[in-house]
Amino acid sequence: MAKSDVKLIGAWPSPFVMRARIALNIKSLGYEFLEEKLGSKSQLLLESNPVHKKIPVLIHDGKPICESLVIVEYIDEVWSSGPTILPSDPYDRALARFWAAYLDEKWFPSMRSIATAKEEEARKALIEQAGEGVMMLEDAFSRCSKGKGFFGGDQIGYLDIAFGSFLGWLRTTEKMNGVKLIDETKTPSLLKWATSFSSHPAVKDVLPETEKLVEFAKVLAKFKAASSNS
Amino acid sequence: MAKSDVKLIGAWPSPFVMRARIALNIKSLGYEFLEEKLGSKSQLLLESNPVHKKIPVLIHDGKPICESLVIVEYIDEVWSSGPTILPSDPYDRALARFWAAYLDEKWFPSMRSIATAKEEEARKALIEQAGEGVMMLEDAFSRCSKGKGFFGGDQIGYLDIAFGSFLGWLRTTEKMNGVKLIDETKTPSLLKWATSFSSHPAVKDVLPETEKLVEFAKVLAKFKAASSNS
Repeated sequence: MAKSDVKLIGAWPSPFVMRARIALNIKSLGYEFLEEKLGSKSQLLLESNPVHKKIPVLIHDGKPICESLVIVEYIDEVWSSGPTILPSDPYDRALARFWAAYLDEKWFPSMRSIATAKEEEARKALIEQAGEGVMMLEDAFSRCSKGKGFFGGDQIGYLDIAFGSFLGWLRTTEKMNGVKLIDETKTPSLLKWATSFSSHPAVKDVLPETEKLVEFAKVLAKFKAASSNS
Repeated sequence: MAKSDVKLIGAWPSPFVMRARIALNIKSLGYEFLEEKLGSKSQLLLESNPVHKKIPVLIHDGKPICESLVIVEYIDEVWSSGPTILPSDPYDRALARFWAAYLDEKWFPSMRSIATAKEEEARKALIEQAGEGVMMLEDAFSRCSKGKGFFGGDQIGYLDIAFGSFLGWLRTTEKMNGVKLIDETKTPSLLKWATSFSSHPAVKDVLPETEKLVEFAKVLAKFKAASSNS
């Protein structure tokens, strides 16, 4: 497979883009990374994802695939000769898909809104909510990992990617709010997992440093404030 | 497979429960239907889906599977000897998953909110939005069906189930608002598809009659008003 066959429209701070990059790395696939700029959308993005106009978009042999989890499953199915991403057992697959949907529909939107909470009370409630979600994932970890190091068992898999892609923003949230969502006392398994995940060869070069994300979060907040005032 | 191995916690008016029932019917699987009552949640539901406490829950050999689309994929993977539900080609699968996610995250929440819109202007805007979504699906139909009768081609598949399960509520919305979302002029393919889908052997006994749903919608509105006043 020549490098030019696979393109990814994305941006480095996006956890959703990171998912596609990790999945491509797991399969040892070269790809062209087409970076979108904050505040504008390229013609290629608008044409490739007319419904949502959002990154990531994977373009494989000219055909666009949108939505991060759909992309991860697509990569797993097309390059099936590489290490598998989805668990092989249907029940394990269902569990992984269930928790990935929970992360995207409930947990991440809630954690993300901490940054824009107007009232101190609302901010605290959201932090508590995010912490409760992490505790549920600690519990899910023991059921999914079956005593191994990853949600996917011995290797990183679908749920590792779905949750792990949020680690940068989770650490940024911890830092900016002076709290710990993953810690030794309440979530010891996840603490260990987060270290293994972050240093994994398929992950370490695409998971941004927390300091860099904190800086980006400040730029983003200013950008949003300016956009809403204009 | 003995009948008692498969249980489904649900309720007849729920489009999400309908998805599981249609998938079970496609695979010709007998199952015990455990019906939840409006306004209360059974102990079994609370124990089987502690995260969301929502129907449907499929219980297979004592193990709970939650979230309607996860259930449909699970049924397809476990009973793989029956007719397939997901398309076999990875790109077609990605397209079907993309549109199913669009329906659940954007289109249905928007259409559902028509019933509770306070202002006439907001109601009209929501109806227009729902109509635009249906037009996009008309377009998606030609790409997915490849000239055949269903999104899945010759047979009903994943996206047929994901969209078709909303047909009862779509017709109820049309009736209660005196509008047409699917019609001969703007969405001729979907109009034909909706007729074929509704009369399909796996569907016809689980898709409720519009009249019955309209009555239920009125009861539901009264119930919600009473709950919010208490």
